[in-house]
Amino acid sequence: MSEAAQTLDGWYCLHDFRFIDWKAWKSLSSDERESALQEFYAFLNEWDLIQKEKKGSYAFYSIIGQKADFVFMWLRPTLDDLNALETAFNKTKLAEVTIPAHSYVSVVELSNYLGQSDEDPMENPRIKSRLFPILPRTQYLCFYPMDKRRDGEDNWYMLPMSERRELMKSHGLIGRSYAGKIKQIITGSVGFDDWEWGVTLFGDDALQFKKLVYEMRFDEVSARYGEFGSFFVGTLLSKERFSQMMAL
Amino acid sequence: MSEAAQTLDGWYCLHDFRFIDWKAWKSLSSDERESALQEFYAFLNEWDLIQKEKKGSYAFYSIIGQKADFVFMWLRPTLDDLNALETAFNKTKLAEVTIPAHSYVSVVELSNYLGQSDEDPMENPRIKSRLFPILPRTQYLCFYPMDKRRDGEDNWYMLPMSERRELMKSHGLIGRSYAGKIKQIITGSVGFDDWEWGVTLFGDDALQFKKLVYEMRFDEVSARYGEFGSFFVGTLLSKERFSQMMAL
Amino acid sequence: MSEAAQTLDGWYCLHDFRFIDWKAWKSLSSDERESALQEFYAFLNEWDLIQKEKKGSYAFYSIIGQKADFVFMWLRPTLDDLNALETAFNKTKLAEVTIPAHSYVSVVELSNYLGQSDEDPMENPRIKSRLFPILPRTQYLCFYPMDKRRDGEDNWYMLPMSERRELMKSHGLIGRSYAGKIKQIITGSVGFDDWEWGVTLFGDDALQFKKLVYEMRFDEVSARYGEFGSFFVGTLLSKERFSQMMAL
Amino acid sequence: MSEAAQTLDGWYCLHDFRFIDWKAWKSLSSDERESALQEFYAFLNEWDLIQKEKKGSYAFYSIIGQKADFVFMWLRPTLDDLNALETAFNKTKLAEVTIPAHSYVSVVELSNYLGQSDEDPMENPRIKSRLFPILPRTQYLCFYPMDKRRDGEDNWYMLPMSERRELMKSHGLIGRSYAGKIKQIITGSVGFDDWEWGVTLFGDDALQFKKLVYEMRFDEVSARYGEFGSFFVGTLLSKERFSQMMAL
Amino acid sequence: MSEAAQTLDGWYCLHDFRFIDWKAWKSLSSDERESALQEFYAFLNEWDLIQKEKKGSYAFYSIIGQKADFVFMWLRPTLDDLNALETAFNKTKLAEVTIPAHSYVSVVELSNYLGQSDEDPMENPRIKSRLFPILPRTQYLCFYPMDKRRDGEDNWYMLPMSERRELMKSHGLIGRSYAGKIKQIITGSVGFDDWEWGVTLFGDDALQFKKLVYEMRFDEVSARYGEFGSFFVGTLLSKERFSQMMAL
Repeated sequence: MSEAAQTLDGWYCLHDFRFIDWKAWKSLSSDERESALQEFYAFLNEWDLIQKEKKGSYAFYSIIGQKADFVFMWLRPTLDDLNALETAFNKTKLAEVTIPAHSYVSVVELSNYLGQSDEDPMENPRIKSRLFPILPRTQYLCFYPMDKRRDGEDNWYMLPMSERRELMKSHGLIGRSYAGKIKQIITGSVGFDDWEWGVTLFGDDALQFKKLVYEMRFDEVSARYGEFGSFFVGTLLSKERFSQMMAL
Repeated sequence: MSEAAQTLDGWYCLHDFRFIDWKAWKSLSSDERESALQEFYAFLNEWDLIQKEKKGSYAFYSIIGQKADFVFMWLRPTLDDLNALETAFNKTKLAEVTIPAHSYVSVVELSNYLGQSDEDPMENPRIKSRLFPILPRTQYLCFYPMDKRRDGEDNWYMLPMSERRELMKSHGLIGRSYAGKIKQIITGSVGFDDWEWGVTLFGDDALQFKKLVYEMRFDEVSARYGEFGSFFVGTLLSKERFSQMMAL
Repeated sequence: MSEAAQTLDGWYCLHDFRFIDWKAWKSLSSDERESALQEFYAFLNEWDLIQKEKKGSYAFYSIIGQKADFVFMWLRPTLDDLNALETAFNKTKLAEVTIPAHSYVSVVELSNYLGQSDEDPMENPRIKSRLFPILPRTQYLCFYPMDKRRDGEDNWYMLPMSERRELMKSHGLIGRSYAGKIKQIITGSVGFDDWEWGVTLFGDDALQFKKLVYEMRFDEVSARYGEFGSFFVGTLLSKERFSQMMAL
Repeated sequence: MSEAAQTLDGWYCLHDFRFIDWKAWKSLSSDERESALQEFYAFLNEWDLIQKEKKGSYAFYSIIGQKADFVFMWLRPTLDDLNALETAFNKTKLAEVTIPAHSYVSVVELSNYLGQSDEDPMENPRIKSRLFPILPRTQYLCFYPMDKRRDGEDNWYMLPMSERRELMKSHGLIGRSYAGKIKQIITGSVGFDDWEWGVTLFGDDALQFKKLVYEMRFDEVSARYGEFGSFFVGTLLSKERFSQMMAL
Repeated sequence: MSEAAQTLDGWYCLHDFRFIDWKAWKSLSSDERESALQEFYAFLNEWDLIQKEKKGSYAFYSIIGQKADFVFMWLRPTLDDLNALETAFNKTKLAEVTIPAHSYVSVVELSNYLGQSDEDPMENPRIKSRLFPILPRTQYLCFYPMDKRRDGEDNWYMLPMSERRELMKSHGLIGRSYAGKIKQIITGSVGFDDWEWGVTLFGDDALQFKKLVYEMRFDEVSARYGEFGSFFVGTLLSKERFSQMMAL
C-alpha cells in the first residue's frame, strides 16, 4: 500500500451552473422581471455581507457557450450551508426562469506533499487564507474537474510517495510561474462528486488559462497521470452586468 | 477458474433519488402543499414503525448539488416490498412535484473472505445486525457504486482467492480505522444494477468521507482494482427539516 | 480467421421497458382508467391465447428502481410480429400514460459449441422447446445484455475454436448447477441491437440471480472476456397485480 | 506514414430516424390525419419519380424497438439535396407528429484495395451501379456505423497497405458468400459524421444479418480492428403498410 | 518534462449550433415570422459590417442531419464579445423558435513548431491574416474537435519536442496538398472547452473534407495520437437561403 498524501481542508464549495429559460423570462411582465432581479440582488447583498465578515465567499460569472448561462461558486463552512443556499435560491422567482445545468461539490484543499512541520498549519495565516479564500473579482473564471489516472503502467496511486512528491514539485513550479496572472483554487471532491478534484482559475487575461493548462499538459503529472472533465469558461457578473444581460 | 468469495445477504436495498419540481410545488395552494406534506409524513410514520419493529429500515437525506434534491434509502426483506414502496410513493401528491433522478437496487452483503467457521453465521447476532441494519441518523450520508476491475493485467476476477483475501484484509484495516467516525453499509448489486456494489457511508463529519475514500484509493484493492461511479453526498432530513426545506 | 460457432435460432424477442406517467394516469377519470385497463387486459388475453397455441410467448414484470416501471418480453416467429405488437400497444389508451424507457431486439439462440451430430437439431424436441420456449411465471426476472471482449490480449474472437469450446464448457457447468433455481434464456442480438447477446433469467429467489452472475464472473469466460450492460430486475405482474399497482 | 486506400464516391446518403408522437397523432381529427398522410404520400411519389429517373434513391422502413419508429434512407447527388429533403419533410404536417431520433450523414463509397486499373472506373457500369445504387425493397433493413480501431497494438491505420489489402480480401470473401441473401451498401462518413463508415444491409431473411455480422466478427478485420456503434433493424414500409401502421 | 510548443493566438471563437423548433415556428403568424426574420437579418447586417471593418468575422451554415439545424461560427477579439453575441441572439424572436444543440469555445491558434525567428510574428501580415481570418463563403463547412492522445505507449505529451516537430511537419504537408480546395482554421480550446482543438474546414467540394480527414488518419500524428469528437457538416446560408429554408 502506497502512502496517502495528507490534506488540509477549508471551506466547502459548490459550483452551481444554470441555464436561463429566456422564453419564460420574456413571458414575465416588466414589473415581475424587475422584482425578480431585486429579490435576487438582496441575496447578492447577503452573500457580500457574509464575505465581508469572512464567513464565506462567492463568485458569479456568465458562462460562454451552451453548457450553462451562469455559475455561482459558493464557499461556506458546512455542506448544510451550501444546501441551504441552493434551497433558498430555488425558492426565488429568478430560479423559476433558470434550469439546472451542472454542479460540483468539493472542499477547498491543500495537498501536503512537503511533509509536516512542527507548527499547527491552521495557525499559519498564509495557509488559513488559502483554505478560507475570499474569491477575487477577476474578469474571467475557468473551472474543470480532474482525476489522477489509474491505468495499467500509468497508475498514480501505485507510485511511492517520494516519486509523487518529486512529480508534484515540478508541477507546482509551472503553477507558480503564473503567479500574478492566475489565481488557482484547488478543491478536493473525493467522496463528494464524480471526479477527485475541481480546479477553479481566476484571471484578467483568459488566454493565460489556455497557456497554463496547455503547458501543464506536457508535465508528466498531467501527461501520464491526468484525466480531465468538462471545461467551463466565464466572464465576471455584477448586479449591473447581470441587469444588462437580462434587460429585454 | 478462480474461486468466488461466499457472501451473506440480508435486506434488499433501494436508493431512490428525486428532484423537486419547484415550479410545480409553488403552483400548489398552501392547503394543497400542507396536505401533500401530511400525506408524506404519514408514510414516514409507517416507515418509522416498521423500523421500530426491525422489519426494515430507511434513511432520508437532502442531496447537495444538482444530481438530486433528496434520497430515500429503503431496506426491506424482499424486492416486492421495495417495489411496493416505490409504487405507493408514486401515488402521493408529493411525488407529483418530484422527478426521478437516479436509483440503485442492491442487497446488504457481507463478503466472507475469512473462511467458514462451524457456527451458522445467521445465528451470530453481530452478523445478523450487520445484514439487517437499522440505519443511523448521522448528519451526513455518502453513496457511490463500484466495480472490481477486469482490465488487462489488472483483473481482480483472475486473481487466486488467497491473493484477494490478503488484499481485502489490508483494505478492511483502513475501513476499521474509521470506526466511530463512519458507519459503512456494503450492498451487493451483481445481477440487480449496473455496478457490482453500492457503498453507503454515514457520519457526522462529512470530511471523514473524503479522508476514508482518498486513503483507500492508495490501497492496491482500489488503486489497481477499483472502478467508481457517481458520488452523492447528503445532509439529514427529518419531518421538521423537510418542512423547512419545502416552506415557501 | 477464427471459426465462428454455429447457432440455432428460434423465436424473435423484444424486451420493451416502459415508465408509467403517474401524473397523466391520475389526470384520467376513474372510468377512463378502468377502460384503459380493460383494453389492455384484452391484449393480455390475446397474448395468453397465442401462448397457449405455442405460437409465441410473453412475460410481464414490474421493474424495481427508476430504470423503468414495467417490461414486456415478447417472443414471436418474425420481427414483423414484434413490430405489430409494439404498434398495437402504442395505440392503446394505457400507452398514452407510459413513456418508453428502453428496449432490446434479439432472437432466441443456442450456441452449438458441442459440434454437429447427424440428426436434424430442429427435430429434437428438447432443442425445439429451448428455441421456442414458453416463458415461465416465476416471481422474479433479470435482464442484461453482454458482449464478448475484443481488447488487446483479451480478444475472444481471436481465440481458436477449441479454446473457446473448452472455456464455454466450464462456463456452462456453472449455469447447469443452478438448474431448478434459475431458468436462463439466451438471445442473440448481433446485427439487431447494441450488444451481442441478451440474457434473461427467471427464478423464484432473486438472490440466486446475484449468486449465479457473481459466480460466473470468476469464470475466465466472464472474467477476461465478458462485458456487461445495464441490469434490470423485476417482479411478476398479472392482471390482478397490475390492477393493484395502478389503483389510485 | 501508411498509404491511404483510394476510394470511389457516389451519391450522398442521409439516414433519418424518427419517433412517432402517438399522443399528438391521436389528438388530430381523422380528416387532419388523412390529409397529413396524403401530403406525405405526395412526397413518396416524388421520391419514387426521382428514383425512376435514377437521380437518387430512398428506403423507408419501420424500426423494431424503441430506438426509432421509422427511418428514411435517402441517396442524392449533393449534401444540399439531402438538406432540402430534411427541410421539406420538417415542414409537413406528419413531421409535427414525429420527433427526431437519430441521423447519419455519409456518401456511398467503394474502397479500392485492389489497385488501379487503366480504365476509368466511373465508366465501368458495374461500379457505377454500386456508387449510384437503386435501393432494393427487401423485407428487412439493418444499419450500423463502424470504425477501424486505433488502439495500442491493434491500430489499423498503422498497418502497411499490403497487410490491410490481404485482410480486406478475406473479409470481402465472407460478404460475397452472402450474395443473393444480403445486399450491402457501404457509405463513408469520415469528415461527415461520428464514425468512419455506415453499413446498410438489405435482405428478406433478417436472420442472415445476424449470421453475416457474427461470422465477420471472427475475421481479423473485425475481431482486432472493428469498432461498432448502435444497430438498427427495420421492416419494409409502403404507403399501404404505413397507412395500416398509423390507422387508429 | 517535455517542452510545450509555443502558440500564437488570435480572435476568440464560438461555434453555436441550434435546432429549429418547427412546431413553434409554424405557430407564429406570417407577420410574426416575417418580423422575426427581419430582426435577425439586422443582426446579420451588423455582423457583416464588423467583418468589413475587420473587427471580427462569422460563418452561417445549415447543418445536415439531426445534430443541429444551423450553426453560427463567430470570431471576436474577446470572450465578452462572444458572450454578448449569444445573449443578444437569445433575446431575439428567432431564438424563441430555436433550441440550443451544441457549442464550442476556442481561440484561433497557430502552433509554432518551426521555432522562433527574430521578427515579431504579430507584425507578419501572413500570420496576422491567419490569426484574424475573414471566414470564406464556401459552399460547405466541416467542424470537429480533437485531442492528442495520452494512452500508454501512445502519449503525445511525453514525446520530445524534436519528435513532435518531425511528426507535425509531415502532417502539415497533407494539409498543404489540399490548398485551394480546403481552407482550414485551427482553434485551440485547452482550458476553454472539452477537447484540445477545434478544426473548421471550408470548401466548395464536400468530398474533399472526407479525403483530407481520411488521408490524415493514416498519418502517424492522427493514427497513433489523434482522438476525434463529433463531426458536423453544413451547407452555406445567406439571408436568401435562410428565408427559403424558413418559408412555410
